[in-house]
Amino acid sequence: MSEINRQYLLKQRPVGRIKESDFERKDSPVPEPGEGEVLVRNLYLSLDPAMRGWMNEGKSYVPPVQLGEVMRGLTVGRVVRSRDDSFSEGDFVTGILGWQDYAAVPGKQLGRAVTEPSLTANLSLMGIAGRTAYFGLLDICDPKAGETVLVSGAAGSVGSIVGQIARIKGCRVIGIAGTDAKCAWLVDELGFDGAVNYKTEDLYKALRAKCPDGVDVFFDNVGGETLDTVLRLINLRARISICGAISTYNATEMPPGPQNIRSLLVNRARMEGFIIFDYADRFAEADAALADWHKDGRLKIAEDIVDGLDEAPRAINRLFDGTNTGKLIVRIADEAG
Amino acid sequence: MSEINRQYLLKQRPVGRIKESDFERKDSPVPEPGEGEVLVRNLYLSLDPAMRGWMNEGKSYVPPVQLGEVMRGLTVGRVVRSRDDSFSEGDFVTGILGWQDYAAVPGKQLGRAVTEPSLTANLSLMGIAGRTAYFGLLDICDPKAGETVLVSGAAGSVGSIVGQIARIKGCRVIGIAGTDAKCAWLVDELGFDGAVNYKTEDLYKALRAKCPDGVDVFFDNVGGETLDTVLRLINLRARISICGAISTYNATEMPPGPQNIRSLLVNRARMEGFIIFDYADRFAEADAALADWHKDGRLKIAEDIVDGLDEAPRAINRLFDGTNTGKLIVRIADEAG
Repeated sequence: MSEINRQYLLKQRPVGRIKESDFERKDSPVPEPGEGEVLVRNLYLSLDPAMRGWMNEGKSYVPPVQLGEVMRGLTVGRVVRSRDDSFSEGDFVTGILGWQDYAAVPGKQLGRAVTEPSLTANLSLMGIAGRTAYFGLLDICDPKAGETVLVSGAAGSVGSIVGQIARIKGCRVIGIAGTDAKCAWLVDELGFDGAVNYKTEDLYKALRAKCPDGVDVFFDNVGGETLDTVLRLINLRARISICGAISTYNATEMPPGPQNIRSLLVNRARMEGFIIFDYADRFAEADAALADWHKDGRLKIAEDIVDGLDEAPRAINRLFDGTNTGKLIVRIADEAG
Repeated sequence: MSEINRQYLLKQRPVGRIKESDFERKDSPVPEPGEGEVLVRNLYLSLDPAMRGWMNEGKSYVPPVQLGEVMRGLTVGRVVRSRDDSFSEGDFVTGILGWQDYAAVPGKQLGRAVTEPSLTANLSLMGIAGRTAYFGLLDICDPKAGETVLVSGAAGSVGSIVGQIARIKGCRVIGIAGTDAKCAWLVDELGFDGAVNYKTEDLYKALRAKCPDGVDVFFDNVGGETLDTVLRLINLRARISICGAISTYNATEMPPGPQNIRSLLVNRARMEGFIIFDYADRFAEADAALADWHKDGRLKIAEDIVDGLDEAPRAINRLFDGTNTGKLIVRIADEAG
């Protein structure tokens, strides 16, 4: 066991893009678990776009991280010591244990981690990303075979799974991503029917060409201009799932709203937001389906693993600058060590 | 029978506000009904915000009115001569018979008009307005007793009925209107729990005060800034019915979109457009419920009747300049005459 507990605290609230100096490293002693608590060695940390919102002062769907607090984050870890009868040393667990090496928390705040196909799958396919893709697509949009499903942020952790599930459901799937390499990966590796590079192509024209029958379902991770453009392309009774709006998270002024909102009326279309935590009582359903599809070879895991907790303050910007593909994960420690 | 058929044709497409000179009166002979056709004497003409959209060049959910065509409009009339066995002289009918004294159309394009409580009720309570209110509120928003329902354009033909239905369903109802007289009418005559004058009050503050528990259902006839402001006040799992966006219909440039769209995500809320014609196979259900509520005295008819077809080109702007209360109707001829 390492002697210290590296902790990354929120030092100041970011203005615009996150800076490394918005965090502060503090080396603390490894905590002692109290009665009913479990001491966990974090092994992997999930980096998520939602973290940008948690760093802001205003209340969102969860309270903000306070200044001086350990930065919030979902992790997978191994139990080092347990004072809760439900957990034993060596168990693999998941929880919101933060950007740190160790956490001592009540056992009821922990979940059991799967070890197959991998520990990191707890943060990707069978984690928040997979569940978000599953419910945000199937529950909010109810895609039918033959329909055209469009996904923004398609090469990201959620988008890459959304597109694959839509393919499994027999839909025609087009992705929007920010590099030619990502677009090629979506089509060649993940089986998307097409992809558009929004940075180099005229988005409206490119989408019109790639979606000649219009858009029945739009799964939106990006918001902003992308959403506004897609509103011009939706079909009658289209369903839009608002998963995120990553294009706006670093904005220092309130970004413009979608001018084509009237398209919802003309097309009798629906736009709906969701938060994955509302589906907690159905996570098992999603996990089982996702695991089955993965086992069948129909759903690939896409992960982007960065080494070392000390890299986290820099790596998080990969979510926003377009250099990340698949689920962004920080490896904090070796699974064995 | 008058010797001529006054017809108001669309002469030019309005830019911004409708001008009288956008229409042209043409005096034609009264048409002869062909085989299977019915000659109808129009008695009442419905004036509707949607007409502004029909006058534009672009396709909306219905094709635009062509230049030189009789302006489209829903009417109630009396059969003068019938060459369709389903109709007899003296029958009262409704149809999209246009801004004119007479129309000869195939019988299958006509519906039977009710005569109780009145012929004008075909254009208000039991017409498009009532049906729009019924399905747009109950089907799209599913309001529950005790919830707060907010209605914009509340003193208009649809809004005034929406609010009354929401009251019947046990909701707390707040209306947004543009004069103190309208606000007083909503509360004193129609039984709204409160009303806000968006022209004289700070809309956000006034709505916060009138909706201390937030907004569960928003029935929006107005769009624009009103929608954007209400997005800041919606509750978890709020439902927004997009019925219209009258604040934007005369815009000569594309108006800004709602900046607070992210509220849909944070609140897991839904925004949905609808077009009443999609509910055609359920109109009887709405008509029966509306008639019952009216008979019980729980639902009042609000009509604003203007005399004379020649007034129509001027009267239509009352929908947009805030001087109209309830359903705007033009009386074309005496019911007996």
